[in-house]
Amino acid sequence: MKNRVITISREFGSGGRTIGKNVAEALGIVCYDNELIQKIAAESGFNADYIEDAGEYAPGGVISSAFSRRGFGQNNADYLWKIQYSIIEQLAAKESCVIVGRCADYILRGKADCLRVFIHADIRFRADRIVKVYGERDESPEQRVRDKDRRRAAYHRFYTDMKWGHAQNYDLTLNSGTLGIDRCVQIIQSLY
Amino acid sequence: MKNRVITISREFGSGGRTIGKNVAEALGIVCYDNELIQKIAAESGFNADYIEDAGEYAPGGVISSAFSRRGFGQNNADYLWKIQYSIIEQLAAKESCVIVGRCADYILRGKADCLRVFIHADIRFRADRIVKVYGERDESPEQRVRDKDRRRAAYHRFYTDMKWGHAQNYDLTLNSGTLGIDRCVQIIQSLY
Repeated sequence: MKNRVITISREFGSGGRTIGKNVAEALGIVCYDNELIQKIAAESGFNADYIEDAGEYAPGGVISSAFSRRGFGQNNADYLWKIQYSIIEQLAAKESCVIVGRCADYILRGKADCLRVFIHADIRFRADRIVKVYGERDESPEQRVRDKDRRRAAYHRFYTDMKWGHAQNYDLTLNSGTLGIDRCVQIIQSLY
Repeated sequence: MKNRVITISREFGSGGRTIGKNVAEALGIVCYDNELIQKIAAESGFNADYIEDAGEYAPGGVISSAFSRRGFGQNNADYLWKIQYSIIEQLAAKESCVIVGRCADYILRGKADCLRVFIHADIRFRADRIVKVYGERDESPEQRVRDKDRRRAAYHRFYTDMKWGHAQNYDLTLNSGTLGIDRCVQIIQSLY
């Protein structure tokens, strides 16, 4: 694989998705985020909304156990993981790109020329931001942020055995709350 | 405090000390590293070598227990911690500067305009680097790196209750092994 890939892991509400999109635009390469979910949906036969959710639930969690019982054999989350794994490998082999989320950093380890980025921010910044971006919900924004973080961390740990948010797993980690989203984009772009 | 401070925490052998020095030179500000140890030595009456070591030993560890028994009251490490705390506060109040190690990120939290940086690299890079910088020892370089990391993490955890190397504690973390020391200097400099 000769292509260069930027993988962006991110805390919910930190603006990682926006940063990925803006970096890709600035560099003139593709950003896989929703497109990746669509591809997994097409290949798996599952609904895109379910896949988006499933990417944040470790097997054994509420959603996966509602669909299948863990014990012997694979459940839906395992099935989706395999499809996701193979699609991410194919994308990195095909072209230079930005991939947001979906454990792409782990999947491409040792295989692609990757810049592995993690974006985070404090809970205040993220709670404010999700209300602006996604609107109000019954649950408090702080609770929504904590809940999503917990699920993403558990999913990541289950499939990768890496500790989510540990500096040592990345080439760089950036606090979008203190540095600002535009500055994060500039730094990543300058490293490509 | 109107000054701007860059705090650099770092894994042993990652080049964090060199990065701090070069950033300070590029920005025309002071870098406190050995100078900080000299100041703590002058104020505490302890030897600088002992202070350098003590900064990597949590109370209850080998060195501190050789000097004093933990139970009630303060031991040497606690005494040095208080002096260190007060000196770092004074430096940040006095001038813009770079401070390497010594939990300055924690000590200055909420008090100073700080850019909190963590530098790390994989064990291969660091083991090679410490042999070049500090020479060979009886112990293998990998063992020296692991040992120092363990001590620094324990010291940090004991005094700050922060998890060393967690992205969330910093504005940015950089992998000097994959990005290169000069590139790390440029990024930090550009954020000042």
